[in-house]
Amino acid sequence: MEHRNSEVLVTVVGPDGVPLVGTDVVVEQTAHEFLFGCIGFDLIPLANGEVGRQGGADAPAGQDEDLAAKWLELFNFATLPFYWGDFEPVRGRPDTERLLAAARWFVDRGVVVKGHPLAWHTVTAPWLLELSDEEILEAQRARIRRDVSDFAGLIDAWDVINEVVIMPVFDKYDNGLTRAARRFGRIPVIRTVFDEARAANPRATLLLNDFDMSTAYECLIEGVLEAGVKIDALGLQSHMHQGYWGEEKTLAVLDRFARYGLPLHLTESTLVSGHLMPPEIDDLNDYQVAEWPSTPEGEARQADEVVRHYRTLLGHPAVEAMTYWGLSDAGAWLGAPVGFLRADGSPKPAYDALHALVKGEWWLNPTTLRTDDQGRVRVRGWRGAYELRAGDAAAGFELARGRDTVEVRLERLGGSTT
Amino acid sequence: MEHRNSEVLVTVVGPDGVPLVGTDVVVEQTAHEFLFGCIGFDLIPLANGEVGRQGGADAPAGQDEDLAAKWLELFNFATLPFYWGDFEPVRGRPDTERLLAAARWFVDRGVVVKGHPLAWHTVTAPWLLELSDEEILEAQRARIRRDVSDFAGLIDAWDVINEVVIMPVFDKYDNGLTRAARRFGRIPVIRTVFDEARAANPRATLLLNDFDMSTAYECLIEGVLEAGVKIDALGLQSHMHQGYWGEEKTLAVLDRFARYGLPLHLTESTLVSGHLMPPEIDDLNDYQVAEWPSTPEGEARQADEVVRHYRTLLGHPAVEAMTYWGLSDAGAWLGAPVGFLRADGSPKPAYDALHALVKGEWWLNPTTLRTDDQGRVRVRGWRGAYELRAGDAAAGFELARGRDTVEVRLERLGGSTT
Repeated sequence: MEHRNSEVLVTVVGPDGVPLVGTDVVVEQTAHEFLFGCIGFDLIPLANGEVGRQGGADAPAGQDEDLAAKWLELFNFATLPFYWGDFEPVRGRPDTERLLAAARWFVDRGVVVKGHPLAWHTVTAPWLLELSDEEILEAQRARIRRDVSDFAGLIDAWDVINEVVIMPVFDKYDNGLTRAARRFGRIPVIRTVFDEARAANPRATLLLNDFDMSTAYECLIEGVLEAGVKIDALGLQSHMHQGYWGEEKTLAVLDRFARYGLPLHLTESTLVSGHLMPPEIDDLNDYQVAEWPSTPEGEARQADEVVRHYRTLLGHPAVEAMTYWGLSDAGAWLGAPVGFLRADGSPKPAYDALHALVKGEWWLNPTTLRTDDQGRVRVRGWRGAYELRAGDAAAGFELARGRDTVEVRLERLGGSTT
Repeated sequence: MEHRNSEVLVTVVGPDGVPLVGTDVVVEQTAHEFLFGCIGFDLIPLANGEVGRQGGADAPAGQDEDLAAKWLELFNFATLPFYWGDFEPVRGRPDTERLLAAARWFVDRGVVVKGHPLAWHTVTAPWLLELSDEEILEAQRARIRRDVSDFAGLIDAWDVINEVVIMPVFDKYDNGLTRAARRFGRIPVIRTVFDEARAANPRATLLLNDFDMSTAYECLIEGVLEAGVKIDALGLQSHMHQGYWGEEKTLAVLDRFARYGLPLHLTESTLVSGHLMPPEIDDLNDYQVAEWPSTPEGEARQADEVVRHYRTLLGHPAVEAMTYWGLSDAGAWLGAPVGFLRADGSPKPAYDALHALVKGEWWLNPTTLRTDDQGRVRVRGWRGAYELRAGDAAAGFELARGRDTVEVRLERLGGSTT
């Protein structure tokens, strides 16, 4: 984990501008540079004051607040849903205000927000089917222009286009995006949507995202890069309903996609705490069961695998983000018990195990250090944000790659009384 | 099969320059426009006068001649082997003369010849491993420049590069091409080898060839085309040791790859006349059996499937060539009974069934027509070459797309006596 740590020589200056020499100071981590992500879908009602909507009429009081607290304790990176068919089921009436409130809720709590996805053949706008192929592409561009602009500043990260490997040959049902991808080709469609998103928010981190971890995705990426389309990060889905990949496969996948020199985001990861989906299922959506219970054995296995998976991912220098696909079993995709919380909100072993990493093994708890005769302390820790306190004064600083020294000027806590 | 036929109004002019009015003429097809291909590996010894080499010391006399006759009766398109590791096992000592003799042997008999392959990670030159990645690519370019130039005029069709989808992630053994593809990327390598082949023989038909019929090959093709690399035809392998694809899958594959607007060549097709390879075998090379006999039931099935497969391919307008991977079971790849002839040279039912198509149902036998009062006959038939005879005079003409009328000037047979 050497690549996730930094060391910095901090010169501590008091509120009066004089270096604090030979003084005890307390250093404490306040945030991770690594993006520990999760979907934030469940918290949209809370962020919008829609009490009881998520849990239903007979949901326990405070359920959403409890979920929010558990979410914020573990994660710093939220994925919000922009599935076009849900976001704008009627053309011209997008769900912008509600998503703005949700994004603002997360940003106010120090969370980085990503929108998912701007273009995808699944849950795309049904009204695209009434348009010509050219009009579909133009509507897609307009949608991107509008939404990326509307959310800029709150959402500066986007899964721009999702699952392009299969998009033009997707044959389960007719849809506008498959038509466009088949008509215009994968790379022209990717160039179009990336150009539009880039123009609407030049500061945004733009991802290409896919579930296909085969060499097909490599072929697509190489074509896209060769065509000069600028991709900021590669999204790798990793739903593991059919079983944990294991370290060897995970590392092999990471190495194959890391060779393009782009940051990797594990965008959609899941590990079940119940029985595994049979291996012969090809499209996960085809597996429909009445009940998919979380079991004690399954929860123990899940906790073990969660720890191993996060260790593997953080251990690889190319990985910058890992998004888990659902904190709670309540409302989970496919009804699978993939949450770190059970449907009743109680934590599974996986929650505590991951917490022990994120806020334990990979976290610098308050640590007392003594400044030297020039007012300096050497701080070594996980890259991210830190707070330094001395008496009733404090200041923040960061541990980041390539920053060896920093001066922090303390400010007195508790307001403007000097 | 409408798209394989043409009609032309032929004006027949006698040796004296006068139209032959109201005269019986005989029209007969002499060649197909469609490329009915087969490997010509087995005939290299015969073409080089290496008698007995192919069949071994105790091979029946005339075996090679018999094989040649059966080959020429069915096919008009030969694939010759240019596997670099076999062709130039010692750097600087290529097997050029022997292959030139073989190519000339086929060309002299009216056969179009294709070289296979110029670049591939399997059976590539072992001495590449002593070179740097840059030197490997330079050696590959030099090899293409030399061989495409040396064979121009005899070989004007090349499988330029083979199996690029898997090339950079091929992990069975180290080799120069995998190193280069991984280092420089698939598309730059493809561009390099195509540019070199194009420069060495601008008239050549240059193919990209792959066994991967999944959407991965589509992604690669789209990237290559988007990058502006000119491909003349797409090669689709179709070894069917694990069973005939059937019409539905075959048509789906053809439709998917036809959408790039490029001609399709089925470059490597096989259908076994014995038991099928188990479906769980992933790399066909992994299946090793002591004996793989041709059986009466297998031969009947093979004949049926051969007819269905050729009908399907010729029925699709995008297909311009179909190369079967081995006329005889003797020396067949993997020891599989894929030939149309048994190891002893006797024809299986598939040979006769395909012959009944190529020289029967899809062939215009000698047909008597009568010219009109302007010396014209209307000829309708399979695209290809024809001969028209009237008395002791004859001439050739072609049925080709977009040619509605032609004038043929007959010449007296039997030499220059006038």
